[in-house]
Amino acid sequence: MNKTITGLGQASYDYIAITDSYPPEDTKQEILEWTECGGGPVATALVSLSRLGVKTRFMGRVSNDRSGRLIRAGLRHEGVDTRGLKTLKGGKSQTAFIVVSQKTGGKRTIFWQRPTVAPLGPDEISAAKIKTSDMLLLDGLMKEASIRAACTAKEAGVPVVFDAGTVRDGTLELLGLSDYIVASEKFARSFAGGPKKALKKFRSFNPKAATVTLGAKGSVTSAGGGTFATPAFKVAAVDTTGAGDVFHGGYIYGLISGFDIRRTVEFASAFAALKCLKPGGRDGIPTLGETLKLMKDGKKR
Amino acid sequence: MNKTITGLGQASYDYIAITDSYPPEDTKQEILEWTECGGGPVATALVSLSRLGVKTRFMGRVSNDRSGRLIRAGLRHEGVDTRGLKTLKGGKSQTAFIVVSQKTGGKRTIFWQRPTVAPLGPDEISAAKIKTSDMLLLDGLMKEASIRAACTAKEAGVPVVFDAGTVRDGTLELLGLSDYIVASEKFARSFAGGPKKALKKFRSFNPKAATVTLGAKGSVTSAGGGTFATPAFKVAAVDTTGAGDVFHGGYIYGLISGFDIRRTVEFASAFAALKCLKPGGRDGIPTLGETLKLMKDGKKR
Repeated sequence: MNKTITGLGQASYDYIAITDSYPPEDTKQEILEWTECGGGPVATALVSLSRLGVKTRFMGRVSNDRSGRLIRAGLRHEGVDTRGLKTLKGGKSQTAFIVVSQKTGGKRTIFWQRPTVAPLGPDEISAAKIKTSDMLLLDGLMKEASIRAACTAKEAGVPVVFDAGTVRDGTLELLGLSDYIVASEKFARSFAGGPKKALKKFRSFNPKAATVTLGAKGSVTSAGGGTFATPAFKVAAVDTTGAGDVFHGGYIYGLISGFDIRRTVEFASAFAALKCLKPGGRDGIPTLGETLKLMKDGKKR
Repeated sequence: MNKTITGLGQASYDYIAITDSYPPEDTKQEILEWTECGGGPVATALVSLSRLGVKTRFMGRVSNDRSGRLIRAGLRHEGVDTRGLKTLKGGKSQTAFIVVSQKTGGKRTIFWQRPTVAPLGPDEISAAKIKTSDMLLLDGLMKEASIRAACTAKEAGVPVVFDAGTVRDGTLELLGLSDYIVASEKFARSFAGGPKKALKKFRSFNPKAATVTLGAKGSVTSAGGGTFATPAFKVAAVDTTGAGDVFHGGYIYGLISGFDIRRTVEFASAFAALKCLKPGGRDGIPTLGETLKLMKDGKKR
């Protein structure tokens, strides 16, 4: 597919431990499976798009520490253009240790190291790369660079997709600059008190479509004056790490493929569901064929 | 000091996260400080001896994975001779993620990946290196190699120190081959029902001395027909990771320095207490001068 997606956001390196159960404090818990890979909402969404044959470019910041090197290597391995991922000496890249408990059906407890490296500055992003993209994906971190990128995209007529995960400084500006809003349930609750109220508030920013993802409960979408719910596909999930990120990748894939909004959300939903069959944010990303097959044959929850 | 200590045991690579508190399942917890270094009872004890100027040699097994490379590099960086640390392709080296909660005074919750690389075999250890050592330290893991090493030491008149952490297959044989037994409180409980009962049982193996460490409660020692308690030094501990291992290093240092057994235990106790002032198993290992100063001026609990 001859399309290019540029994303700007926070990249992380994730250590993921599958355990039988989440242990009480002051005890020892054996790890059944240790996986590690790059993470971060936009970074993993771009990896999922790259797997589907879409050209992708990532803009962000890492330190020159091990996590930073592994983040870059992981993205390059997946064919993501990392020339916009800038390295600074010193500080720490974001790193996380994620415990996934089998006993509670894959519930995740996340220990995370906040990045101490300076965020990407607005003057460090390439306007030319944004203008020559088919879509821009933002996660709302690195506020100043994100707003500059969104304004650049707007001026050039490049649609902006906003992955709204947490309400933070700059969120309102980015909602106003977005063509598509895909928010987590957590965001919807803290922004508006719940998914339906959030969709209503999102409409005041006049996006082409807005979706709130609800995990195993599927998602709700507002578009073209109407609202619809999409149930999740029924899969034997072992780890939901990255499922939201892969949903965003699938959403963009649907949009640039010319799917209507219902089929776009359904595609994103199937794409994200299949990811959950393997531990880690990226190992389980399915192929186009697998995703279309689940859409055709899969059972809804 | 012109002495050489050889140790054989399990090496690990530890990621240590200092957090404000230990989180409930299904939540996110920020890591305040992320430290990482090699670990393992014998490996860290040898590092502590190397810091005090003692020649040290480590025998063990790692895989050729990242943890294995980092374990070897960490030991070499500390001047430990790693020619007896054998690498096998494939499998996994032992790796741990340790959460240290400040709210509960440094309580540790350990997530650990069991090594899947084959243990060191008895024919892979160098008898010549053991015979030319002043003391041999064992942790009871890799049973067959440990028993062979202990027998080789015995025949050559090299004293054997046994770090008894967990009761497992081979424990009784090693207790019988040991000149000095230093056991954890956990070992004492599971082996004999408690520290005093353990000391009594240890005497049946006729060691020169046996000590049970009790964390902040100090230790109890049986030697020369008598028994004595040693209180712990009062320090503002931030992380007890590796404190037991450093205690073993200090214990050996006292013995090879010709300290009597009371002074040996007191030295080990001060040496281990100072380690706890810094996160991680090795960063906080103190100098000889710092340890002697705490012995002279320090407050007991």
